[in-house]
Amino acid sequence: MSFILWFTGLSGAGKSTLARALLPELSRYGLDKVEVLDGDEVREHISKGLGFSREDRRTNVLRIGYVARLLARNEAVAITAAISPYASDRDEVRAKSEAPFVEVHVDASLEAVTARDVKGLYQKALAGEIQHFTGVSDPYEPPLAPEVRVHSDRETIAESVDKIIAHLLDRGLLARPRQEARAGVES
Amino acid sequence: MSFILWFTGLSGAGKSTLARALLPELSRYGLDKVEVLDGDEVREHISKGLGFSREDRRTNVLRIGYVARLLARNEAVAITAAISPYASDRDEVRAKSEAPFVEVHVDASLEAVTARDVKGLYQKALAGEIQHFTGVSDPYEPPLAPEVRVHSDRETIAESVDKIIAHLLDRGLLARPRQEARAGVES
Repeated sequence: MSFILWFTGLSGAGKSTLARALLPELSRYGLDKVEVLDGDEVREHISKGLGFSREDRRTNVLRIGYVARLLARNEAVAITAAISPYASDRDEVRAKSEAPFVEVHVDASLEAVTARDVKGLYQKALAGEIQHFTGVSDPYEPPLAPEVRVHSDRETIAESVDKIIAHLLDRGLLARPRQEARAGVES
Repeated sequence: MSFILWFTGLSGAGKSTLARALLPELSRYGLDKVEVLDGDEVREHISKGLGFSREDRRTNVLRIGYVARLLARNEAVAITAAISPYASDRDEVRAKSEAPFVEVHVDASLEAVTARDVKGLYQKALAGEIQHFTGVSDPYEPPLAPEVRVHSDRETIAESVDKIIAHLLDRGLLARPRQEARAGVES
């Protein structure tokens, strides 16, 4: 049994970037079987045809949860990086997961993500060219008690990564690399 | 890297039964991370809403292929048990798979599966109550050169399992259990 790292946050908050920045760090701790289930990629592979209605968003999140659970129960770490805006949908996946479920809120203010607007989507959403856009014309329900909360609008990526690693170590989901542990004993 | 065992065959041919019968055998060879992606289960989890049109069947097969590939590249064996009636769809998944792809044709004559009619579906399909039913009102394209072909209408399940295990050993995808190998040396 491995674990699920479930990122949630606004579009452009940096979920995928942070997920990918975690890979070399997890590898340092001996975890090399890691899959990033990126929101866009998942929509392409298992959720094409789904839209952004309340029900379709739930279906999308449950599908990602299903794949993440299959991976985690086979010793691979699943990192999901989809907006997953509804608390009840995330809680539904959490309740179904046999593996430890670590919710990471990638928190960035709407002002910050709108100012950056990496994909130019906020401009279109604010102009009414995109409907059902999370944070603009569709709700985002931040987790009230996520296992980890990072503030991507005022932390460096390295700082956010460190917070997540610290939590995983604390929970016993990561073990310190052998060399590091030995060095500690010898010093 | 593990491998994908892709079962294909008519409804009622015994794909899921055979997949589950393989689990204890694979376990004897040390493979305990194995997932059976059953056709019905997959339709529930990642393909709800898809129908049985030519395009929807392709989408369903590609989705199963995506999940199977994620598992196989993380050292878990993926056994799929969906009808997957079109050769070109199966070949598309095969081409995308980084892991060895073992196609198993679970062959049973239409007469045999209709006579058994485990789920009562053939009767309905023949009466015209179900449309697009593979083998009755929708095509089934048997693989011309599958890695393994079992004949579930005239072999026991144990015989079919043995054929598959023999192929996997032959391909080097299974290693003989240590005890067995030792016994061989000592005798």
